[in-house]
Amino acid sequence: MSHRTYNFSSGPAVLPEPVLRRVQAAIWDLDGTGIGVLEHSHRGKAFTAVLERTEALVRTVGGVPDSHAVLFLQGGAASQFYQVPMNFLAGGTADYCNTGVWSQKAIAEARRFGTVHIACSSEAARFAHIPSAAETSWSSSPAYAHFTSNNTIYGTEWTHEPAPPAGVPLVCDASSDLFSRPIDVARYALIYAGAQKNLGPAGVTLVIARRDFLERGARDLPTMLQYRTHAAESSMHNTPPTFGIYVIGEVLEWIVAQGGLPAMAERNRAKAGILYDFLDQSALFVGTARADSRSLMNVTFRARDQALEAELVTQATARGLDGLKGHRSVGGMRASIYNAFPIQGVRALVDFLHQFERSHRGRSE
Amino acid sequence: MSHRTYNFSSGPAVLPEPVLRRVQAAIWDLDGTGIGVLEHSHRGKAFTAVLERTEALVRTVGGVPDSHAVLFLQGGAASQFYQVPMNFLAGGTADYCNTGVWSQKAIAEARRFGTVHIACSSEAARFAHIPSAAETSWSSSPAYAHFTSNNTIYGTEWTHEPAPPAGVPLVCDASSDLFSRPIDVARYALIYAGAQKNLGPAGVTLVIARRDFLERGARDLPTMLQYRTHAAESSMHNTPPTFGIYVIGEVLEWIVAQGGLPAMAERNRAKAGILYDFLDQSALFVGTARADSRSLMNVTFRARDQALEAELVTQATARGLDGLKGHRSVGGMRASIYNAFPIQGVRALVDFLHQFERSHRGRSE
Repeated sequence: MSHRTYNFSSGPAVLPEPVLRRVQAAIWDLDGTGIGVLEHSHRGKAFTAVLERTEALVRTVGGVPDSHAVLFLQGGAASQFYQVPMNFLAGGTADYCNTGVWSQKAIAEARRFGTVHIACSSEAARFAHIPSAAETSWSSSPAYAHFTSNNTIYGTEWTHEPAPPAGVPLVCDASSDLFSRPIDVARYALIYAGAQKNLGPAGVTLVIARRDFLERGARDLPTMLQYRTHAAESSMHNTPPTFGIYVIGEVLEWIVAQGGLPAMAERNRAKAGILYDFLDQSALFVGTARADSRSLMNVTFRARDQALEAELVTQATARGLDGLKGHRSVGGMRASIYNAFPIQGVRALVDFLHQFERSHRGRSE
Repeated sequence: MSHRTYNFSSGPAVLPEPVLRRVQAAIWDLDGTGIGVLEHSHRGKAFTAVLERTEALVRTVGGVPDSHAVLFLQGGAASQFYQVPMNFLAGGTADYCNTGVWSQKAIAEARRFGTVHIACSSEAARFAHIPSAAETSWSSSPAYAHFTSNNTIYGTEWTHEPAPPAGVPLVCDASSDLFSRPIDVARYALIYAGAQKNLGPAGVTLVIARRDFLERGARDLPTMLQYRTHAAESSMHNTPPTFGIYVIGEVLEWIVAQGGLPAMAERNRAKAGILYDFLDQSALFVGTARADSRSLMNVTFRARDQALEAELVTQATARGLDGLKGHRSVGGMRASIYNAFPIQGVRALVDFLHQFERSHRGRSE
């Protein structure tokens, strides 16, 4: 295999190379059918098998119980920001945890449909940490409680789910860490995730939701905006994003071959640990997230001399370390190291940062 | 190149083989970047170039004037069924031409947002033809007039746009014939098309719409459901379906190399002509669409002895002629022969139908 660039993009993001090789073959001919994966009818046998396989893999890899439906939708997490309150808020109150830009976008869309109670927020600390239970106050019997499990921009991640009062449906935007570690799906009423971090290409949104919760959704909505439509028709009410579903299936097969989510979690801890260990001993660089809230997916950091950051990103790119520039809203650097990102790439980054720091000694105070 | 199956699927559908070869390469490495097309950040240089190139090709190939925005959305035509009335109906009246199942689905969603006036319908004739101007009566100053330019299930296609009174915005579901022939885009307020027939893979919806019309849309809608959001941010409000946009660009390059839409129209007339000429002289088979309304995209036909149809489809599939079974709602056979379907495949189908007819002589009366 030819050497490829180390791709630290926050999403769309790196995919496993064996998956890419299989996708290349399937583009021409899926499973010996003489027809490529992009060209198969979504109602034909070949794609039906793809859909069934992918759903089965979501269930086995993710530990998704039969109580929950598995849906492959479109429109990204940005569409879930409104679809969740459109279905479940209906003039009532929902509790939101505000841990950054993506939480805020979800909150803004929810406010169109009812009252939002901010149960907790780390905004005053520039979103550098995940609020603790002591910093959180829930409203009485909200329609649901929403949180963003990983915050790509600030490099923070919930280590455990927030704990609203018993009986409050828990809704999670898990776009950037779903299937990077085991979670207890039974605790959630609805989880949504754009696929383009750990799961596949942009253009598919994986939704995992309790069937009885979906049934509670509003009925005076367009057919396509009712979750129940897609649950009742197994994501086949209209033409689904067939290719994206196929790629997710291939990625999940790869995860199984690596040892499943426990192995993924271990790899991801190891990769992030190498970077955080480096940052903790560096005189030039400093991590931006509080130690107890550090994301295993997106490692955000600054140079103490911020004037060096542009040069650093340029040099890194020239060395085949791509996508390290931080989100435009916060600046600095960000290394996104999702499931498929190789540990060699993390080591290559740390080697480069070491060298960069040595060559700029004296400018780090 | 290895021989592939002739794929008569109504969509997702056959793509040009040179495009598939380029897609295979880009999956591993897009344009020498060392990063595959599925993995590139949508905000990076490489994908920005893809998006700009694809939009420019939509404009040059489709003759789209600057007055019109070009949007790459998600959710298929099924999402446009509600998004159009949600934005533009607002309790008023819209006129719809009812030419089959897809029109009816659009009508059903529009009724959630206002009054639908059925300007014309061929339902009484089982949708075997396109209504004439004499069969059409428009309401006075509707919010817009909607039609379905090609009807995949019944094999009918409008040869010219319907002509509502001057000033009435014309909205078209062109999912199954956009870019199969030249049209005068300036006549339309909004055209939408799922990509999976003539343009690319499932999961991208191309919307071409007059900017001033989009500005008229309702403002009390979720951000993602306002067309203006996507027009103002060039389809980059959130992560777009990057891969689908890339493939559309490749397909459009291929169309340019074939001679553009005039050449496509000529090819498509030639391909459909071979099939219709055969049907018109056959004693066993009969086309289901009225001669003046025949689609160049989907050729629908029956056997006079309908008991033979299942056998025919089975035999055809065994000979590498795949996807000929008609839509489940009408039965019979359907040959979908979009832009990328090769004329050799049409000839192979006619040869097969000839043979089949000869071998069943005497059962055709």
